[in-house]
Amino acid sequence: MKKVGIIMGSKSDLPVMQEAADMLDYFGIPYEMDIVSAHRTPEKMFEYGKNAHKRGIKTIIAGAGGAAHLPGMVASLTPLPVIGVPVKSRNSIDGWDSILSILQMPGGIPVATVALDGAKNAGILAAKIVAVENPELMERLVEYIAELKQKVIDSARDLD
Amino acid sequence: MKKVGIIMGSKSDLPVMQEAADMLDYFGIPYEMDIVSAHRTPEKMFEYGKNAHKRGIKTIIAGAGGAAHLPGMVASLTPLPVIGVPVKSRNSIDGWDSILSILQMPGGIPVATVALDGAKNAGILAAKIVAVENPELMERLVEYIAELKQKVIDSARDLD
Amino acid sequence: MKKVGIIMGSKSDLPVMQEAADMLDYFGIPYEMDIVSAHRTPEKMFEYGKNAHKRGIKTIIAGAGGAAHLPGMVASLTPLPVIGVPVKSRNSIDGWDSILSILQMPGGIPVATVALDGAKNAGILAAKIVAVENPELMERLVEYIAELKQKVIDSARDLD
Amino acid sequence: MKKVGIIMGSKSDLPVMQEAADMLDYFGIPYEMDIVSAHRTPEKMFEYGKNAHKRGIKTIIAGAGGAAHLPGMVASLTPLPVIGVPVKSRNSIDGWDSILSILQMPGGIPVATVALDGAKNAGILAAKIVAVENPELMERLVEYIAELKQKVIDSARDLD
Amino acid sequence: MKKVGIIMGSKSDLPVMQEAADMLDYFGIPYEMDIVSAHRTPEKMFEYGKNAHKRGIKTIIAGAGGAAHLPGMVASLTPLPVIGVPVKSRNSIDGWDSILSILQMPGGIPVATVALDGAKNAGILAAKIVAVENPELMERLVEYIAELKQKVIDSARDLD
Amino acid sequence: MKKVGIIMGSKSDLPVMQEAADMLDYFGIPYEMDIVSAHRTPEKMFEYGKNAHKRGIKTIIAGAGGAAHLPGMVASLTPLPVIGVPVKSRNSIDGWDSILSILQMPGGIPVATVALDGAKNAGILAAKIVAVENPELMERLVEYIAELKQKVIDSARDLD
Amino acid sequence: MKKVGIIMGSKSDLPVMQEAADMLDYFGIPYEMDIVSAHRTPEKMFEYGKNAHKRGIKTIIAGAGGAAHLPGMVASLTPLPVIGVPVKSRNSIDGWDSILSILQMPGGIPVATVALDGAKNAGILAAKIVAVENPELMERLVEYIAELKQKVIDSARDLD
Amino acid sequence: MKKVGIIMGSKSDLPVMQEAADMLDYFGIPYEMDIVSAHRTPEKMFEYGKNAHKRGIKTIIAGAGGAAHLPGMVASLTPLPVIGVPVKSRNSIDGWDSILSILQMPGGIPVATVALDGAKNAGILAAKIVAVENPELMERLVEYIAELKQKVIDSARDLD
Repeated sequence: MKKVGIIMGSKSDLPVMQEAADMLDYFGIPYEMDIVSAHRTPEKMFEYGKNAHKRGIKTIIAGAGGAAHLPGMVASLTPLPVIGVPVKSRNSIDGWDSILSILQMPGGIPVATVALDGAKNAGILAAKIVAVENPELMERLVEYIAELKQKVIDSARDLD
Repeated sequence: MKKVGIIMGSKSDLPVMQEAADMLDYFGIPYEMDIVSAHRTPEKMFEYGKNAHKRGIKTIIAGAGGAAHLPGMVASLTPLPVIGVPVKSRNSIDGWDSILSILQMPGGIPVATVALDGAKNAGILAAKIVAVENPELMERLVEYIAELKQKVIDSARDLD
Repeated sequence: MKKVGIIMGSKSDLPVMQEAADMLDYFGIPYEMDIVSAHRTPEKMFEYGKNAHKRGIKTIIAGAGGAAHLPGMVASLTPLPVIGVPVKSRNSIDGWDSILSILQMPGGIPVATVALDGAKNAGILAAKIVAVENPELMERLVEYIAELKQKVIDSARDLD
Repeated sequence: MKKVGIIMGSKSDLPVMQEAADMLDYFGIPYEMDIVSAHRTPEKMFEYGKNAHKRGIKTIIAGAGGAAHLPGMVASLTPLPVIGVPVKSRNSIDGWDSILSILQMPGGIPVATVALDGAKNAGILAAKIVAVENPELMERLVEYIAELKQKVIDSARDLD
Repeated sequence: MKKVGIIMGSKSDLPVMQEAADMLDYFGIPYEMDIVSAHRTPEKMFEYGKNAHKRGIKTIIAGAGGAAHLPGMVASLTPLPVIGVPVKSRNSIDGWDSILSILQMPGGIPVATVALDGAKNAGILAAKIVAVENPELMERLVEYIAELKQKVIDSARDLD
Repeated sequence: MKKVGIIMGSKSDLPVMQEAADMLDYFGIPYEMDIVSAHRTPEKMFEYGKNAHKRGIKTIIAGAGGAAHLPGMVASLTPLPVIGVPVKSRNSIDGWDSILSILQMPGGIPVATVALDGAKNAGILAAKIVAVENPELMERLVEYIAELKQKVIDSARDLD
Repeated sequence: MKKVGIIMGSKSDLPVMQEAADMLDYFGIPYEMDIVSAHRTPEKMFEYGKNAHKRGIKTIIAGAGGAAHLPGMVASLTPLPVIGVPVKSRNSIDGWDSILSILQMPGGIPVATVALDGAKNAGILAAKIVAVENPELMERLVEYIAELKQKVIDSARDLD
Repeated sequence: MKKVGIIMGSKSDLPVMQEAADMLDYFGIPYEMDIVSAHRTPEKMFEYGKNAHKRGIKTIIAGAGGAAHLPGMVASLTPLPVIGVPVKSRNSIDGWDSILSILQMPGGIPVATVALDGAKNAGILAAKIVAVENPELMERLVEYIAELKQKVIDSARDLD
């Protein structure tokens, strides 16, 4: 059963959003991936938001650029935690537009926003959320922290 | 028959949005006013966006603050021109969040954005749009330009 | 008879502004295109602004970069709705200068501002305004919304 | 058993952070609250980050202002999802400093960032995360969405 | 004969712009003061810009807020140096809008921009320009530099 | 006799600052050009600022990047109008640093700031200042305005 | 013998800069305090910068607002480390102007910049620099870190 | 004995941070260089911060990008002056994130921040701090100021 839903507003967001999928693969978490546009397929977005939790999805990762409404709109429709990835799209103003239109949600409808083009962290955050009911996965996340440390220690050794 | 629909995301936007209504009153254009929240009443927003043009509305003025998704979401649902008013809400970051999340719409779904808290101009812009099929109103708009001029000339006389 | 006037401050704005013309072609709306500089041909701008509505133009699209005064100045001269396109010109400060000098118009003189380099949306917005008196065109715009949806659905299918 | 840990860098953050606690009370989720400063009590922060998951905490809400290092530092120490609340402190530069120092975490260490002073949403997001293993709470969140809708509908009725 | 023309877009700019007049009084330079709005009295602006140098004006100080087009438009019409004062008006976005729409003029049409609400410096700059053909005034400006120094030295003495 | 002094903080500013010299050549105004660094040759800057007006210089154009102190420091030393050119240097933060450190001078010491990398306009502004005591040059500036207009009209003809 | 020199561009900076003096008092470090304006007393600034190290000063704290040139100019004249305090003055643009004109110094002339209005930290940083040749003071600084910790622990206890 | 510690959050910061090392080599000051990540090797960072002063290090240069917590965290652990270098990393938002998360430290824990990617200046600032107890090095720094001057004078000569 898929645990995480990754959606994005446009196929052009895929190179960024793939990093979220890669991290879920890394942690062995099954996921689904789809293109759902707030502005071009609003009905599909509605259905996605209303039903994701009913088929066992635990968290949704939503990426979009510019005036990025997908993460916030989906968050308004689902009881699941929604992770928003601001994507620095072609005509973006240095990414400020996507950051602010995802981050600054009104009281009542939170979006868990990560860094600009931070889909990798969105994948890890999804893993941390899924781990809430999965002690084995939480153990795996503790190990991941150790792996990050080891890589820095190795690169410090290279420096000498 | 109502020609203009004024909607806003929250009742707290009313003091700002009232200025749009005032301008429509000034030009004698019938309008309707409602609270429609993209994040809290998405179904109502859907119906509003899908049906406004069917009952004779010619243009929609939509105001919202923070991560302001209402203008863009409505614009994605209607063939009518949508005028977006960025409202500087309480926790706004100097208004940048509402401006960018209304202005920076992706290709295909335009929102006619006016200045921060610029509901007065939204009302005038709506009048200009309605005037496209109403020569008398267009004449009235030409006069309005003359009235603006006269006010400045009067205030310049006061200066002496 | 031409329904839309597209003007720009400099020939260097043409690659951006052409996208507005392309959308008008797409919707079969006749338009005119000209270079009108607020700062270098102020008299021409004056005549353009004062007379456009007299020869049947329904809306004006004005694009400019840097300290972009053309959209606002034309808006002050015409009863027509003016759509402003902030162009990210060569020495622009990331586009902020053109955005703010078009968007932040004082009360009384609205400019319908679209996204940075958003001429495509300016063309669609012009079509929506022209459609106010043209039910066939409004039908065409409803179809356009459906076409946008279909494209996303197709690209989602490609993803699998 | 406490499910959520709320920590903040300074007692002056309490008025903002209290809203997170209020939402957890609203959903009936037990929580703990503490002052943990990244810069003044680094050892306490270390212990907090390393041990929270061991005593049953499911997610940590961390709020801080200015150069806000607490959320990111705690996130680097725990397998739990960390929710970061940028607080607009006294000498903050309009909140940009706290937003960017919480949001822009490097790859590997995500922080789920909410809006400036958005502690209310942090509380709701925590509830959504805890609900991943609690179907009853998820049901409660579906109801909460309906309550938000009802409030808007009521305020729209007041408008008439 | 008046040497300096002070113009502003609205009477509400007067409290700021008065400081320019005060400095010209201080240096004994005759000036005129008027309200000239680029957007509301474009014809008056045209005549002002085209004729100021013909009646002996040596430099023009133009102040405006928001999308501030007055300084740049007047600069495009006159051979005189134009000094632009960005005024932080009521709905301004922290003054960025007026600064950028005055400062970022395209090649060919310079505006000598001073600080936000910096009308005092605009008055001094006008005096420096008038002094180009007036050795006595230049001498006065050298003295002014000495006066500024003396004030600081006095306030430093107070500190002890 | 040299009428205009062009100075810059570093030889790397020359490609930008050369455009000021080009405009002065265009108007036939004799000028001098030098490298004067506020931070590396403070004594030279002092002498330059204190003496320029004594040898007949009428206005100084000063360009610098980053924390750009040269224009403001020279302005504090001379009775002449100083034109500041913010240069977008290599490590500049999109030019904001040079703009703000030139534009936001305290009351008493004005700098006539032009656009980012706007040395061409600095040259024209210098010509306008020199023209205050030179009717022939002022006539030449009136012609220049006409030339700008003709170029736009020609490019508009090319568009057809 | 005075170990630290505190200077500021204007007496209006005193309420902010006093906090630096307070910290030096706290650590028992003798200091001097003066008003030295880069733009109004450039000669005094020159002498201050050139001679401070000769009379035993170990580090200079310089505060200024707006286009803040004092810290950078003094840094160019002295072999001592200069600590820059960006002061949010009255017409400042949210402090960005003073921050950027102090922080973004060119290669060769460093300024140790602290937070906006961060004079308290400037005082502590000066103490840390003086402690380089004073083991007793360094011990005192280790204690200070412990005191900060204790205060947080106490305020955490109050929270319960 | 090493006098300066240079640390950075990631090996990718090395090209920037090397310039600090180069300046220390230039002044003949022995230094050490290491990779210490606040988020990936927090224990190593702790030990580094707690012990550097015990083995004779006089100042620490810490560089990091994005949400840059290393300089501030180390500063909270050591009695030594810490110099922070904001690095413009790959996904940085024009460097604003690293600047603000280093500069805006809370009262009590100063970081001496230099310009974006300003590692060269960090090296010079470290030399100035070390010189506090080393008159010969201070003499060397006076000479360095003279060398900077000579280079500008030479490049000015080339200009002719």
